[in-house]
Amino acid sequence: MAARSLDALVVTSLPNVLYLTNFTGSAAIVVVTAARVYVLTDFRYLTALAEASRTARACPDLEVIKVAGSYDGALADLLASQAFGRAGFEAADLTVARHAWLVEQLVRRGVTTEFVATEGIVESLRVRKDDHEIATLREAARRLSDVAKRVIEDARPGLSEAEFAFAVDTRIHQAGFSRTAFDTIVASGPNSALPHARPGERILSEGDLVVLDFGGVYRSYCVDLTRTVSLGPASARVREVYEAVRRAHGRAIAAVAPGRSRFDIDAAARQSLIDSGLGEAFGHGTGHGLGIEVHENPRIAQRRPDVDPREDAVAAGMVFTIEPGAYLPGWGGVRIEDDVLVTEDGVEVLTDVSTDLIEI
Amino acid sequence: MAARSLDALVVTSLPNVLYLTNFTGSAAIVVVTAARVYVLTDFRYLTALAEASRTARACPDLEVIKVAGSYDGALADLLASQAFGRAGFEAADLTVARHAWLVEQLVRRGVTTEFVATEGIVESLRVRKDDHEIATLREAARRLSDVAKRVIEDARPGLSEAEFAFAVDTRIHQAGFSRTAFDTIVASGPNSALPHARPGERILSEGDLVVLDFGGVYRSYCVDLTRTVSLGPASARVREVYEAVRRAHGRAIAAVAPGRSRFDIDAAARQSLIDSGLGEAFGHGTGHGLGIEVHENPRIAQRRPDVDPREDAVAAGMVFTIEPGAYLPGWGGVRIEDDVLVTEDGVEVLTDVSTDLIEI
Repeated sequence: MAARSLDALVVTSLPNVLYLTNFTGSAAIVVVTAARVYVLTDFRYLTALAEASRTARACPDLEVIKVAGSYDGALADLLASQAFGRAGFEAADLTVARHAWLVEQLVRRGVTTEFVATEGIVESLRVRKDDHEIATLREAARRLSDVAKRVIEDARPGLSEAEFAFAVDTRIHQAGFSRTAFDTIVASGPNSALPHARPGERILSEGDLVVLDFGGVYRSYCVDLTRTVSLGPASARVREVYEAVRRAHGRAIAAVAPGRSRFDIDAAARQSLIDSGLGEAFGHGTGHGLGIEVHENPRIAQRRPDVDPREDAVAAGMVFTIEPGAYLPGWGGVRIEDDVLVTEDGVEVLTDVSTDLIEI
Repeated sequence: MAARSLDALVVTSLPNVLYLTNFTGSAAIVVVTAARVYVLTDFRYLTALAEASRTARACPDLEVIKVAGSYDGALADLLASQAFGRAGFEAADLTVARHAWLVEQLVRRGVTTEFVATEGIVESLRVRKDDHEIATLREAARRLSDVAKRVIEDARPGLSEAEFAFAVDTRIHQAGFSRTAFDTIVASGPNSALPHARPGERILSEGDLVVLDFGGVYRSYCVDLTRTVSLGPASARVREVYEAVRRAHGRAIAAVAPGRSRFDIDAAARQSLIDSGLGEAFGHGTGHGLGIEVHENPRIAQRRPDVDPREDAVAAGMVFTIEPGAYLPGWGGVRIEDDVLVTEDGVEVLTDVSTDLIEI
């Protein structure tokens, strides 16, 4: 904020609000100043905030402002009463309509605060996890790995994709996650060629490849894991494609180290699949950051010429997925996904499930 | 669009995209023109869109544009190639950052399209449901009512709130809903005084009031229901508060008819609770619209002086909740919620569960 000459930063993105204050409700706005962190929220969350303020998780210098009417009205009141010289807002979260309304309110009240667009201020802090976050993600990954082992045992022909997805969700719940991190994917047979298939009425059948992709939210932090299993003995072609994806997955993990470009990590997986003749079959990025959101920075993706190479490097404390895949329309697909932490001297794979091809 | 002199409308809000095209994926942008509905989406959803185009649910004049890189890049390409005179965007959805980037792209490409803020164009269509939507919501409400009856039977002392919430979610899944419409609320004992409590480790106990608030998404449409039960015989005070909320709930439903102000419907419930000495105990609005989103228009809330009275009236085809409550901190709370449809000559209550006080 000092570097940007900001007297205040208005934080409207809820994951950023949670990061700054441990607030886990569904509605709040935070205004950060050098002296104070204002939290605007309504009566539903006042008790929870008061309780949190008495714990080790308390955010220091927190001042709670009760919102009685509209949130943006309360924000305008605060901005008017404080009359900051320069206040930043989160341009990637605030909509054009809310921004226009707030500016109009400030003008109407004769407030001369300069209201300036910012991007990525809180996100730039979130991208490297602190010790508490790493411990949380490590425990979450351990629990999700246990879920994966049980889920693989549960898989059998005769269940529908939707039934099996619900069984996965039940395992995730039983493992202590507060919720799934995204809609669980169970993609069987030809559906496994669709990277984001929705579980449907198709019955898991002998001979199917089944992509199982699921995640959980544990103490506000997201983890994500994929394994692909074969129902019955795998054909030679299945083995070939599976081993190619597994090799790409290993190459990408081997490319992770502090200072390495995120694009180079993607390229390690991509080149490996190209070498296996499956370059065209890999249509998505190699991974995404994990944290309060299930998709956050860093993006482990194909190099883009417009990104400053100095901003490419991964660093100790970053946590992201490695999830190459190969999708052959009409035939099926394979994806293998683990969660990794960049350490001071390399990489720690947080998830712990065999990548051997499983034939059920 | 003609009234606003728009040659095109850029629809970025996903619920609006779904409403216009039946697209149920997680990423798409629609551009509506007089001749065509362009859908920009990526490879994950092309198969599903192609399949939908061969059904009765197909959106006419649909043209699918495959997004290879960024969505906003593909949108800029389309806007540049079509060079519309005046294109609207959804100011309540598009962020300041995306808007600034798009405007910069248009300027850079020498496109002179006037890019104008609009609000509520698609939402104004969504607020009155058509016959297909009403049939879907009626069936969804029937299924959720069955869930409610079973859930009330499931309630018993000894379960934790979180365990019971998961049992509710399982019932919702078994009833054919694709997912819960929001995080299920099981608020017991003193927690029942918190309108949006999260289910926790508290054990349901004899003498508790338990607020059960849950919803499901059925064929993309949301329904929502609340009942409050007493574990064991209700005290005289519980009976008194329960009957007061039940009376308010009945008064609000009786106030629903085409042409009636949504504020008057809220006032019917609110005045009833004031008359019972519980005005202060009712801190939220009386209801919210239901549809593709679980909270949409109309808002059945306290009158606001800044709203044009001519825009207050509810009309046939609107579907919303009626959910008054009374919350007494430290003691407990009661909420009763049903879903109603405004008909040509009055109201139809879509949910069908007794509002008698249940003692378990």
